[in-house]
Amino acid sequence: MRSFFRPESVAVVGATANPIKGGYHIYNNLKTYFSGRVYPVNPNYDEIGGHTCYRSVSDLPEVVELVILFIPAKHVPSVMAECAGLGIKRIQIQAAGFVEVGTEGEELARQVLAIAGEHDIRVWGPNCTGSVSSRDIFFAPFMPAPDLNEKLTPGPVSVIAQSGMLAGGFLVQMLEGGYFGIDKVAAIGNKMDIDEVDILKFLADEDDTRVILMYLESIARGREFMEVARELSGKKHLVLLKAGRSEQSKAAALSHTGSLAGNEQVIDGALAQAGVIRVSDFMEMIHVGQALATSPVSAGGRRVAVITVTGGGGIVSTDLLSDFGLEVPDLTPETVKTLQEIFPPWMPPKNPVDLWPTMELRGINEAFELVVPVVLKDPNIDAAILLPFASPLVETQKVDIFTRAMKETGKPIISWVFGYPDRFEMFEDTMKAAGIPVFRQLSQAAKVLAAFRTLGGM
Amino acid sequence: MRSFFRPESVAVVGATANPIKGGYHIYNNLKTYFSGRVYPVNPNYDEIGGHTCYRSVSDLPEVVELVILFIPAKHVPSVMAECAGLGIKRIQIQAAGFVEVGTEGEELARQVLAIAGEHDIRVWGPNCTGSVSSRDIFFAPFMPAPDLNEKLTPGPVSVIAQSGMLAGGFLVQMLEGGYFGIDKVAAIGNKMDIDEVDILKFLADEDDTRVILMYLESIARGREFMEVARELSGKKHLVLLKAGRSEQSKAAALSHTGSLAGNEQVIDGALAQAGVIRVSDFMEMIHVGQALATSPVSAGGRRVAVITVTGGGGIVSTDLLSDFGLEVPDLTPETVKTLQEIFPPWMPPKNPVDLWPTMELRGINEAFELVVPVVLKDPNIDAAILLPFASPLVETQKVDIFTRAMKETGKPIISWVFGYPDRFEMFEDTMKAAGIPVFRQLSQAAKVLAAFRTLGGM
Repeated sequence: MRSFFRPESVAVVGATANPIKGGYHIYNNLKTYFSGRVYPVNPNYDEIGGHTCYRSVSDLPEVVELVILFIPAKHVPSVMAECAGLGIKRIQIQAAGFVEVGTEGEELARQVLAIAGEHDIRVWGPNCTGSVSSRDIFFAPFMPAPDLNEKLTPGPVSVIAQSGMLAGGFLVQMLEGGYFGIDKVAAIGNKMDIDEVDILKFLADEDDTRVILMYLESIARGREFMEVARELSGKKHLVLLKAGRSEQSKAAALSHTGSLAGNEQVIDGALAQAGVIRVSDFMEMIHVGQALATSPVSAGGRRVAVITVTGGGGIVSTDLLSDFGLEVPDLTPETVKTLQEIFPPWMPPKNPVDLWPTMELRGINEAFELVVPVVLKDPNIDAAILLPFASPLVETQKVDIFTRAMKETGKPIISWVFGYPDRFEMFEDTMKAAGIPVFRQLSQAAKVLAAFRTLGGM
Repeated sequence: MRSFFRPESVAVVGATANPIKGGYHIYNNLKTYFSGRVYPVNPNYDEIGGHTCYRSVSDLPEVVELVILFIPAKHVPSVMAECAGLGIKRIQIQAAGFVEVGTEGEELARQVLAIAGEHDIRVWGPNCTGSVSSRDIFFAPFMPAPDLNEKLTPGPVSVIAQSGMLAGGFLVQMLEGGYFGIDKVAAIGNKMDIDEVDILKFLADEDDTRVILMYLESIARGREFMEVARELSGKKHLVLLKAGRSEQSKAAALSHTGSLAGNEQVIDGALAQAGVIRVSDFMEMIHVGQALATSPVSAGGRRVAVITVTGGGGIVSTDLLSDFGLEVPDLTPETVKTLQEIFPPWMPPKNPVDLWPTMELRGINEAFELVVPVVLKDPNIDAAILLPFASPLVETQKVDIFTRAMKETGKPIISWVFGYPDRFEMFEDTMKAAGIPVFRQLSQAAKVLAAFRTLGGM
C-alpha cells in the first residue's frame, strides 16, 4: 500500500500537455511537488514540459513502482497486460467508465481483475482521484493544485473517500479552507480491488495519522471493516459519513460507483460498538475532524460539564448531549463548595453551571476564568462545553487559563458561540489558538464531544 | 395583547439614569425609538435624561396602557396593587426572582397572580426581556440597543422565546446578523400568565408575520397549543426549538424558568400532525427562518429534485431528505427526453440529476442554467436542491434563470455549497440575491426543504 503514497518511481499513462485535461494535472502535480522519479507516458508526445514523454510503459527506463492510468476505460486492459508483462505490481486507475456505466464497463472491469489476479497486481480505483500524502507531497488527483507546498499542511487527519468528484471537491475545500493538517487522502472510487479495509489497515501503522475521516457509499467487507475498526478504536479517531442509508439513495449509489449498500441497522449497531463516530454530512465531518485535530487533548469521556451564560442554552445542550449518549452529571460536593465562594449566595451552583448570577457581580470574562478550571478538575467530569456570549468584551478574555486547565487535567474544552456575529471570527480565532474548537451550532459541539469520548475509554 | 406591542402609553417602573442597569435601557430604548408616550418611574430621580421622572405610577399624568416593571421581585406585589387601583390592565415584569428561586419567590408569584386575577390584569413575564415590535420600533428589552432604526428591519419573522438571557442574546444576534426582517419578538420568560398560546393567537391575525420561530422550554397548555398550531398551519410557518427533551434537561428547565416539561413522545407526534417544524438548535432555527423569509416562494412539497455536480452529494442528500420524510422521485418521461438533448448519450438523466457528464461538455454554469428550469417544471417535482461547486467561475453564473424558474413554477430552490471556501460568501450573496437560500451543511438544507413543505399541502 506504501507504493500508492510514496513510491520510488511513478508513471502517468495519459499524461498530456493540454492543461484542460486531467492527465496534464496528474503528471504536473507529481512532477512539481514530488521528489521521486515521475515519467509521462503518451504516444502523441515526445516531450511534455521539457521532459521526455514515453510512448508506452515498455519504453520507460525502469520498472516503475506505480503506474497511474488516465486513459479511456476500453484501453485499460491492454495497458494493464503490458504492465503485468513488465512485472509492475501497483496500478491506480483514475478514469471512469467501468461498472457504473453498465454491461460493457462490467466486462472491462472483469478483464482488469483477471489480469490483476493472475499477476498479483493490486489495483486502486477506477473512477477516483487517487492518493495523496503530505509527506514529500505525493499528490496524484487529476485536478489543478497550485501552491500545494503551502496548502497541504502536514497534520493528524487522513481521509478515505469513495466518490470521485466529491472526494476531489472535498479535497479542494480542505486544502483551501485550512481546517486541519492532513496526513493522507485516499479517494478509492469504485474500489474494484483496493478498498477501505486495505486503507484502514495501512493507516493503522501510520503514526502520523490520529484522525481518520471516511466517506463511504458502501462497506464492501463488513466483518473485516468492523474488525479493523475495533482494533483502531482507542488508538485513532474513526469518523464515518456513510451514504446510501435510505432505500432511494441505495439505488442512486448503485448507478454512481456500482456498489451495493448493506443492511443499515446491522451496520449501525456494529459501528457504534467499534467506536466509530457517524456524521450526517460533509461539513459535520470537517467540523469533527477539525476539533479532534486541533485540541491539545485527544480523549474525553461520557460526563460533560456545561458552563453557560444562558440557562436556556444549558438545557438545549443537555438535550443534545443526551442524544449522543453523553451525560451532564452532578458536580462533587467539593466542587460545589469551591464554586459557592465565587457565586452569589442565592444561586446554588450545579451542572449545567449558569454563570448569569456571578456575571452580574464580576463580568462575563472573570466568571469564565474562575469557574472553568474549578469545574474541569472535578473527578465527576470528563470534558466541558462553554456557552459564552461573543461581544466586544471577548478581546480581554484570558484564554491561557483554559489551555492550562486542559493540560493539567487532560480533559478537552469546546465552545459554542452566539451573540454579535461580527465578533464570531475573532472569538473563534482566540479560542482556537487556545486549543478550544468553536461551533456556531450546538448540535455540532455535542457531536464533537461524542467523538472525543471514543478515545476516553468510558 | 396589542398593548404589549404598540401601546398608546407606557410607564417604566425602575427606570434609572445609570447606564449599567437594565432599567436605564428599557426606558432609553422606548424613549429613543417609540413614538408613543413613555414615562420613567423611580422615587430616587426627579428627572432622567431631561424628562420628568415620577415617584410612583400614581403620580403619572394618565392611566397608562402598559406598565413595565424592572424592580426587585419583593417590591412587585405592592406596585401591582397600586397599578390595579389605578385601573391599569397590562403589566410586563422583566425582573427575575420568582418561582425559579424557590419558596419565597413562589409566594411572591402567588401574590402577583392573585392581584391580577382580582383586577382582570394580564401579566407578561417575569424573568424575561419582554416585547419587541418593528412597527414604530417598540423595543422593551433591558439591554443596550443602539442604531435600532437601522438594525430592526421589518420583515416576515416573529419570534417567541422563553428564556431571558438567551432571548436577549439571540435577539442581539438576529439584529446584528441581519439574517431576516423581523415583525415581533415575544420573550415570555416564566410565563406566569401570558404564554406562547396567547402570543400565537395574537400573531395569527398579524398579517405581517409569515414565519414564527419559537424557543420553548415547556408547552404549558398542550391541547390549546396544538389547536392554534393546526389553525395556523397552511397560513404561517411554525418552527419550534423545544428544549427539555431529555430527563436531565427537564430538571435543568425546572430550576431555570420554573416550568415543567411534558411527555416528549406525545408532544412529538402532535407537533408533526399540526405541521410544526422542529429544529434542534438555535443556529438551525435561524437558518430555517432565514430561508423561509427570503425565498420568493413560500410553499414546497414532498417531492424534491436533486441537481448535483457530485454523485456522492446526491446520495447523501437523498438520505437526509428521506430522514425528513421527503422523496427524490423519478422524473417524467417528458423531462427525461428534454434532458437527453442536454446530456451526453452515455449518461441517462435521472433524479438525483448528476451534471458531471454534461459539465464536461458545457462547463458547470451552463449545465445548471440548462437543467434547473427543465427539472423544476416537472409535474413530479415540488422543489429543487442544487449541489454546485463554489469556484472562481461562480461570478458568471446567470442566477436570474433560477429566479425566473421559481416564479414561473411557484416552486422553491435551495442550494448547498462546497468547494473553495474563499468563494463561499460571494456564492451565498449571489444566490441569496436571486432568492435561493444557501447552506454549508446538507442537513440544514434538507431541514429547510421540510419546512417549505408545511405550506405546500402535500
